[in-house]
Amino acid sequence: MLKLYVGNKNYSSWSMRPWLALKAAGIPFTDEVIPFDFPAGNPAIRAISETGRVPLLIDGDFKLWESLAIIEYVAELFPENAVWPSNRKDRALARAYSMEMATGFRGIRNACPMNLRRPQKPMPITDEMRQDIDRIETIWHRSLAKSGGPYLFGNFSAVDAMFGPVVNRFEAYCLTEHPVSLAYIAAVKAHPAWQEWAADAAKESWIVPEDEA
Amino acid sequence: MLKLYVGNKNYSSWSMRPWLALKAAGIPFTDEVIPFDFPAGNPAIRAISETGRVPLLIDGDFKLWESLAIIEYVAELFPENAVWPSNRKDRALARAYSMEMATGFRGIRNACPMNLRRPQKPMPITDEMRQDIDRIETIWHRSLAKSGGPYLFGNFSAVDAMFGPVVNRFEAYCLTEHPVSLAYIAAVKAHPAWQEWAADAAKESWIVPEDEA
Ligand SMILES: N[C@@H](CCC(=O)N[C@@H](CS)C(=O)NCC(=O)O)C(=O)O
Ligand SMILES: N[C@@H](CCC(=O)N[C@@H](CS)C(=O)NCC(=O)O)C(=O)O
Repeated sequence: MLKLYVGNKNYSSWSMRPWLALKAAGIPFTDEVIPFDFPAGNPAIRAISETGRVPLLIDGDFKLWESLAIIEYVAELFPENAVWPSNRKDRALARAYSMEMATGFRGIRNACPMNLRRPQKPMPITDEMRQDIDRIETIWHRSLAKSGGPYLFGNFSAVDAMFGPVVNRFEAYCLTEHPVSLAYIAAVKAHPAWQEWAADAAKESWIVPEDEA
Repeated sequence: MLKLYVGNKNYSSWSMRPWLALKAAGIPFTDEVIPFDFPAGNPAIRAISETGRVPLLIDGDFKLWESLAIIEYVAELFPENAVWPSNRKDRALARAYSMEMATGFRGIRNACPMNLRRPQKPMPITDEMRQDIDRIETIWHRSLAKSGGPYLFGNFSAVDAMFGPVVNRFEAYCLTEHPVSLAYIAAVKAHPAWQEWAADAAKESWIVPEDEA
C-alpha cells in the first residue's frame, strides 16, 4: 500500500496537491501528518525526507518527493485511474498549467499562505498579486469554457489538485468576485476529496504564526 | 514537424533544457531563436507566447509552453525514443530531480546566469549557493554511482538536459573541483546535442548585460 507523508493539512499547500490528486482518482493509499510547528522546520521531516520537505511518497523501500513527480509516478502505476485528463493535448496543457503553478505565482504564494481555517477577509492586492490572479483566471476561464466544467478538463484531475491551494487563497483572501471563478471554487470545495482533507484540517490544533497573514 | 521556439542559445537556460532533451533522444524538430535582447523582454516573444516566455513548442495548431510539459508531451508522442529513463523508479527519480531543478536552486540560478561564452572565472560562493551546490552534487554523485554513468541514469535522458545549464554554471563560475562532478560535466559537454547547441551559441553576437555576471 502506498503511503503519503504530508504536512499540516491546514497549511501545507504542497502536501495537499498530490493528496487531492490521488484521493480524487481513487488511488488506495494511507497518509500520515508530520506537523511543521517548529520555527526552523521539523526535524521529524528531515529524519524521513532527504530534501527536508513534504510531501513524501513511500512505496515499499522506494521514497519519492516533489509533488508533481509523485503524481506522475502514481499516474503510471494506476493507468486506469485517470489521474491526468485522458486527451493527449488536454493532458499536455494540464501539465503546463501545473508547471506554471509549481514554478510561479509567487505574488499570491508569498502574500497569502494557504490556511483552510482562515475566516474570509480581504487582502490588499499588489501589482504582483494582480498579475498572478489575472493569469490564473485566464487559465481557469478558458479551460472551463472549453470543457464545460465543472473542473478544468471536465472531470477532476491532477491540475485541479495543483490549483487546490489557490482555491483556498482566492476564497480566504477575497481575491476574486468573478462568477466563473466562484463557481469553480465552489465545485472544487464540493468534491469529496476536498471535503475529506478539509475535515481533517479542521481537527488540527497547531498554529503556525507565519502562515496567519 | 515539431517546432521549438527558443531564446538566445548563449543565455536561455529554460530553452536549452527541452532542446537538449529532444535532440539527444533523436526527436525530429526544427527550431527558431527569438533573442531577448530588449531590456523589458522581447515583444516578439509576447507575440507568439501567451506567457511571454520561451521555450514554446508548436505542433500544428497546438502551442505548448513550460520546459517540462514540453518534454512530457514529446515523450508521449515518441514512446520509443527513451526521452526519460526506461526503468519506472529511475524515471520517477529523474522527474523528482527535474522538479527540484525547476522549482529550486535559486542561489546559483540568481547569482550565476547561464552564459556559454563566459570564460572560466571563479565566483565567491555564498551560503545559499553552497547549499545548492551540495544538493546538486549529492544527486549527481549518487545517481552516477548507481548507474555507472556516463549520464545520471546511464544513457543521456531528460534529467541530464534539465541539469544542462547547471553544467555550464559549475564550469564557468568554477563552482566545483570534485572529480566525479568534473567527469560528469565533461560527459555532458561531449554529447553531440550539447556540441550542436554550443556551436550555435558561439555564433550569436547579442550581449545581454544583466547575464554577464
Ligand atoms: N517543490 C516541492 C515543495 C515542497 C515544500 O516546500 N513543502 C513544504 C510544506 S508545503 C515543506 O515541507 N517545508 C518544510 C518545513 O517547513 O519544515 C514539492 O512540490 O513537493
Ligand atoms: N518555467 C518556465 C520558465 C521559462 C523562462 O523563464 N524563460 C525565459 C528565458 S530562459 C524567458 O522567456 N524570459 C522572457 C524574457 O526575458 O523576455 C519553463 O520551464 O519553461
